Amino acid sequence: MTTDFTATRALFDLPEGVIYLDGNSLGPLPVAAKARVARTVEQEWGQMLIRGWNAAGWMEMPRALGDRIARLIGAEPGSVVLGDTLSIKVYQALASALEMRPDRRVVLSDTGNFPSDLYMAQGLCATLGADYALRTVAPEEVAAAIGPDVAVVMLTEVDYRTGRKHDMAALTRAAHAAGALILWDLAHSAGALPVELAKAGADFAVGCTYKYLNSGPGGPAFVYVAPRHQDRVRPALSGWLGHEAPFAFDPDYRPGAGIERMRVGTPPILQLAALEASLDIWDRVDMAALRARSIDLSECFIAAVEAGTDELRLASPRDPAARGSQVSFHHPEGYAVMQALIHRGVIGDFRAPDLLRFGFTPLFTTVEEVRRAAEILCEILTTEAWNTPAFKQRAKVT
Amino acid sequence: MTTDFTATRALFDLPEGVIYLDGNSLGPLPVAAKARVARTVEQEWGQMLIRGWNAAGWMEMPRALGDRIARLIGAEPGSVVLGDTLSIKVYQALASALEMRPDRRVVLSDTGNFPSDLYMAQGLCATLGADYALRTVAPEEVAAAIGPDVAVVMLTEVDYRTGRKHDMAALTRAAHAAGALILWDLAHSAGALPVELAKAGADFAVGCTYKYLNSGPGGPAFVYVAPRHQDRVRPALSGWLGHEAPFAFDPDYRPGAGIERMRVGTPPILQLAALEASLDIWDRVDMAALRARSIDLSECFIAAVEAGTDELRLASPRDPAARGSQVSFHHPEGYAVMQALIHRGVIGDFRAPDLLRFGFTPLFTTVEEVRRAAEILCEILTTEAWNTPAFKQRAKVT
Repeated sequence: MTTDFTATRALFDLPEGVIYLDGNSLGPLPVAAKARVARTVEQEWGQMLIRGWNAAGWMEMPRALGDRIARLIGAEPGSVVLGDTLSIKVYQALASALEMRPDRRVVLSDTGNFPSDLYMAQGLCATLGADYALRTVAPEEVAAAIGPDVAVVMLTEVDYRTGRKHDMAALTRAAHAAGALILWDLAHSAGALPVELAKAGADFAVGCTYKYLNSGPGGPAFVYVAPRHQDRVRPALSGWLGHEAPFAFDPDYRPGAGIERMRVGTPPILQLAALEASLDIWDRVDMAALRARSIDLSECFIAAVEAGTDELRLASPRDPAARGSQVSFHHPEGYAVMQALIHRGVIGDFRAPDLLRFGFTPLFTTVEEVRRAAEILCEILTTEAWNTPAFKQRAKVT
Repeated sequence: MTTDFTATRALFDLPEGVIYLDGNSLGPLPVAAKARVARTVEQEWGQMLIRGWNAAGWMEMPRALGDRIARLIGAEPGSVVLGDTLSIKVYQALASALEMRPDRRVVLSDTGNFPSDLYMAQGLCATLGADYALRTVAPEEVAAAIGPDVAVVMLTEVDYRTGRKHDMAALTRAAHAAGALILWDLAHSAGALPVELAKAGADFAVGCTYKYLNSGPGGPAFVYVAPRHQDRVRPALSGWLGHEAPFAFDPDYRPGAGIERMRVGTPPILQLAALEASLDIWDRVDMAALRARSIDLSECFIAAVEAGTDELRLASPRDPAARGSQVSFHHPEGYAVMQALIHRGVIGDFRAPDLLRFGFTPLFTTVEEVRRAAEILCEILTTEAWNTPAFKQRAKVT
């Protein structure tokens, strides 16, 4: 399998005059998603009505699309299912994992984790009782901090601010050696770089589809459970579509087979239709080729920026092997600089307190765009009015 | 405000040759939803990309649309927010409510509740520990069963099988008199009949939008928290969009103001766009007129069916004041009868073990359709081949 990234770019609908370096926040629209969503709305919902659950295959979509995502993250067939949001899936996986280590009370994470993961863990610990706690350490201190009280290590593989990438295989081994389970959040990994969940021996993983996987605003999350755990897991969020026989309307919950038990309620079919159109593109993508291209793009960007300005300080690891598919720079006036960039048609994003963040998404981003974006960024920093009080005032209110 | 139900019917896209009496399971497509969803996909997602969160108002939709649903269920402005699925919202509201009665350990429900509500409660109780329990009694025994150990009474106002309607005001009073809180599931109430949450003094409520509210397959759920509780509630599902300042990326959760704290993760924008188109219709609907029309339709159906056959036994309350907006009949071969009906273009649904269920949705269902549906049902029961082994065999496999 090889990937022609010129061909994949033509499969996205990108606005004129925009260089989009924020596909790590919200992926762009696959051209085919327009007709796919319209078909779901008009032919399926409109004409089939309730019959769409069977006739249009709606009921099977969470599992069928999960299998297509599985390939991208090195997961076994039948181990991934779509549904809910990433925050909900973090809660569900974490609650399941904690029950598998009943004599331990600590969730270990790092200070670079996405705040919602930490919040969901805080909420779960508060529900479970005073002896449960979330403990966070610096990212580089995780391995050493997996003590005998740690039930679950919960990490986001790629840091949402800096792009710093954890060593999934090593940390999974470290967690297991200490008797803990591990839960990986792949929000900035799935579709960004090759992931090898099965090979690493991961226990649980979660991720979202609206970033690199281009499923559109609010697209559903996914959850992975290692096959060896699937029939032991008790889903704390035990909804009817995770029941062994949802349409038997049994008064008592009995978990479904395998990954099906991680389903909860009725799946969002319009969002899944958009995801399906996007996965038609992803089915053609070789993840090693994607990674090589991603590194080319990010290295090119760093080199061009650093050649053009000395006002920015790299916040991401300099070694591309230690990064995901994004690059961040510190700048004390980062917010205003990003606003100026957006005014010039280069869309990245700003993350407090001072980060300019740029995502590199090989399916639709070209080397020429990356060079041009770096050029515009350097121009802004040397010549533009972004640092006038008037500009900053305007930027704050838009 | 009056409602012209001939005019509202024209606002739905209904397939030719179908009499749709299953809007209580999945509402039909509002004509305007086609363009509204296409606009969200093509102009908003496609052209605005990440900027859509502000420029297209995506971030505000869960609250803005919640306020429009609030009118339909007698809720105060600012007390309803959209998100997740009904099962997740049941869990969230129930967990919040249980914490407000820390000295009590029982969730009381009834055997007519929708199984997923019971499953979510079972899952939550198992997570909370061995001293928590879900207790179910017959629907008519709920009031008497609210003992001093009951923390929360969790009821679905309208029974999904029979349409039997609880007395919300009386049971809310009974719960409060016994020191318990009450959580109402409005899955078969919202858009089906007038609901008066504030007047009844309800504590929490949840509901879905894809039934009577016509938001499409997998449309999001909503949650209501009484204003008097909003600033005391700790959301057990504490996600970043419920944080006081989501984009501050604070490592510690601090609940947002009011109903905002019940938000969890990223909202499903395509589904919300479809809901918005549907609420443009609902904004014109007078709920008292809707109820009068709903009763006319269901009374007409019962009378016509009972005049035409004696093979069916009414499973719904005969008194329309004690019903929601659906009518069910028992028949020992209910599944095959429903298949035969669907073959003749009348779509209702079957609920095990023996229920034929028909929803009456005044926005698009006419008296003529109801009469014709009853006629076809009676024809099937007296003359059709539905009761041959060959038909039943065929019906089972489709």
